[in-house]
Amino acid sequence: MSELFGLTNLPYGVYSVDGSPARCATRLGDHVVDLAELLGEEVFAQPTLNAFMAQGRQRWDEVRAAITAALSDGLPEQGVHPIADVRLHLPFEVADYVDFYASEHHASNLGRLFRPDNPDPLLPNWKHLPVSYTGRAASVVVSGTDIVRPSGPLAAGEFGPTARLDIEAELGFVVGIGNEMGAPIAGIDADEHLFGVVLFNDWSARDIQAWEYVPLGPHLGKSFASTISPWVTPMAALAHARVDTPAQEPAVLPYLTLGSDQRPWGLDIDLEVEWNGEVVSRPPYASMYWSPAQMLAHLTVNGAPTRTGDLFASGTISGPAEDQVGSLIERGEGFLEDGDEVVLRATAPGANGTRIGFGECRGRIVKGTTQ
Amino acid sequence: MSELFGLTNLPYGVYSVDGSPARCATRLGDHVVDLAELLGEEVFAQPTLNAFMAQGRQRWDEVRAAITAALSDGLPEQGVHPIADVRLHLPFEVADYVDFYASEHHASNLGRLFRPDNPDPLLPNWKHLPVSYTGRAASVVVSGTDIVRPSGPLAAGEFGPTARLDIEAELGFVVGIGNEMGAPIAGIDADEHLFGVVLFNDWSARDIQAWEYVPLGPHLGKSFASTISPWVTPMAALAHARVDTPAQEPAVLPYLTLGSDQRPWGLDIDLEVEWNGEVVSRPPYASMYWSPAQMLAHLTVNGAPTRTGDLFASGTISGPAEDQVGSLIERGEGFLEDGDEVVLRATAPGANGTRIGFGECRGRIVKGTTQ
Repeated sequence: MSELFGLTNLPYGVYSVDGSPARCATRLGDHVVDLAELLGEEVFAQPTLNAFMAQGRQRWDEVRAAITAALSDGLPEQGVHPIADVRLHLPFEVADYVDFYASEHHASNLGRLFRPDNPDPLLPNWKHLPVSYTGRAASVVVSGTDIVRPSGPLAAGEFGPTARLDIEAELGFVVGIGNEMGAPIAGIDADEHLFGVVLFNDWSARDIQAWEYVPLGPHLGKSFASTISPWVTPMAALAHARVDTPAQEPAVLPYLTLGSDQRPWGLDIDLEVEWNGEVVSRPPYASMYWSPAQMLAHLTVNGAPTRTGDLFASGTISGPAEDQVGSLIERGEGFLEDGDEVVLRATAPGANGTRIGFGECRGRIVKGTTQ
Repeated sequence: MSELFGLTNLPYGVYSVDGSPARCATRLGDHVVDLAELLGEEVFAQPTLNAFMAQGRQRWDEVRAAITAALSDGLPEQGVHPIADVRLHLPFEVADYVDFYASEHHASNLGRLFRPDNPDPLLPNWKHLPVSYTGRAASVVVSGTDIVRPSGPLAAGEFGPTARLDIEAELGFVVGIGNEMGAPIAGIDADEHLFGVVLFNDWSARDIQAWEYVPLGPHLGKSFASTISPWVTPMAALAHARVDTPAQEPAVLPYLTLGSDQRPWGLDIDLEVEWNGEVVSRPPYASMYWSPAQMLAHLTVNGAPTRTGDLFASGTISGPAEDQVGSLIERGEGFLEDGDEVVLRATAPGANGTRIGFGECRGRIVKGTTQ
């Protein structure tokens, strides 16, 4: 794995060793590097990235250049720990969390499952706006946190542990600089606002969700837990992964248009879903219909404010092939049992012909104590 | 109004004078009383109530007794300001925000509007679980904040300012002590967790909402702004307002059952909706089908964690009569124009035959700058 964390990656995270206070770090190869020690900056001697994220694009660029320079001759002598020796924490405090539904293949697969008689698997609004809902920020946990199988209402008079516990393989986008209420963010300005990317598993209890979701959307079927990777990959590391999004037809509204002179906002990131040690799917992020710049423009077009630490996720990433789906319900071969473990991983093209990694987004299902 | 803020009320808020740092206060009559000065406690020398709220029920009771004793002979000489001289701030930092849909009359009124051919105006799940969704915490603003008319997608290829801008008259419940992930809160323990009540206006853009909400629920139609009153009425002040909720038939699941030996969780709070200076409706909170204890039990039954500062709102409060509806869409006489002002107020029975007030939840509609 270490070759995926070279100088062209340099993600941000938060670590502690032997119960010491948590501090910000980057990763080089299989080592964690303390950023407050490396750069002598107090903003990194904190248990979250939020203060640094709030400093904005110019500082993000300056710090990335400083880290690159400081590590160009290899690991420093101080403030370095083998990754096996540290605990990795939730890297930032989540402000508001929103989940999108941006994969045409995923939305179509679900449409065929739930509305088999409908000739169009997509709902009427799907290609006109990036459909989305707000979720529970407090339920976002870091990779490695056990996931307690949720109980909830399943049907009229029926209550119990979910029998249809699923994953959703997604990416999450982290807002560094938000917007004031009443002042929407234009999609062409997304680079000034988006700090980085995490792997995201939106654990879903399909039976709870199916019973509760009309008319106000999913709630308890999702709010019990969402897992993110401990590393935030900065947008700057993904400059070589930027690709065109699929053609959008019908044409989207102006607020969702980037302009043909802009750098594209598709991302050529290859995910893999490992279920109990076996890779069962390889969802390609490049197939996503709606881009993160469009998602951010949509989130704020009504004047809604965003803040440092806002997290919006892409929705399940499913490619066109059967072995590219991002959820188990699409796979059709059963749901998660107690003791099952799911790990999401991903790689993307980095600078100079390298590939960069995103770390792991890992969770194991445990039985609820009241079951 | 001052008789509504006697010694049996003593709500909590946050104020500043002439740009001084914001600090916690209570209100007696038409004066604001600085709590750090009154009680000599540093926890109140802060710009939010969160630290105090996190201290828990026993401390809430002790502090309420101490304030009552300190003010029993009238206003102190120091740290007192006429309410007209202060600025009132958002009283607490909102963690996660959830909105319920707990009024049978409101849900039935909307069912008759949207599904006129359906013999049952309620959807199949409505009496089996308190339907709800998560909203944007960052969009919660304090009374008096102007509300910018939101723009958004209205239909295929259509974008613009909402033409159906509505209110929803609600109460909001503030969590003082939350729960750990995986450890649900039982309804009978709600008194240990709920700190107080605010007035809540869930501004709604009905056209944006109607186009976006299938299948993941409302998002931009709600996320532009929600207004709360500046005063949090402590649950202790509402001891004399506790009444039975309406009979629930069919019987609810055990996790939603309080037990007949418990103090009831209905609240006899009378709201009024003032639109451009005229009281147009008087929604009775006592008519609400689902109680706040049931809402809190539901929120957490799947193991979802709550935190100090979590806010969950009741959903639109509508009584059985035409002049008791909590939204304009139910009234059927038009929506909000630019320049319109809406004020929510409420009173409830307090101790010793008094009535207590909740202050104002006020907002004026202003034109968006990009329209």
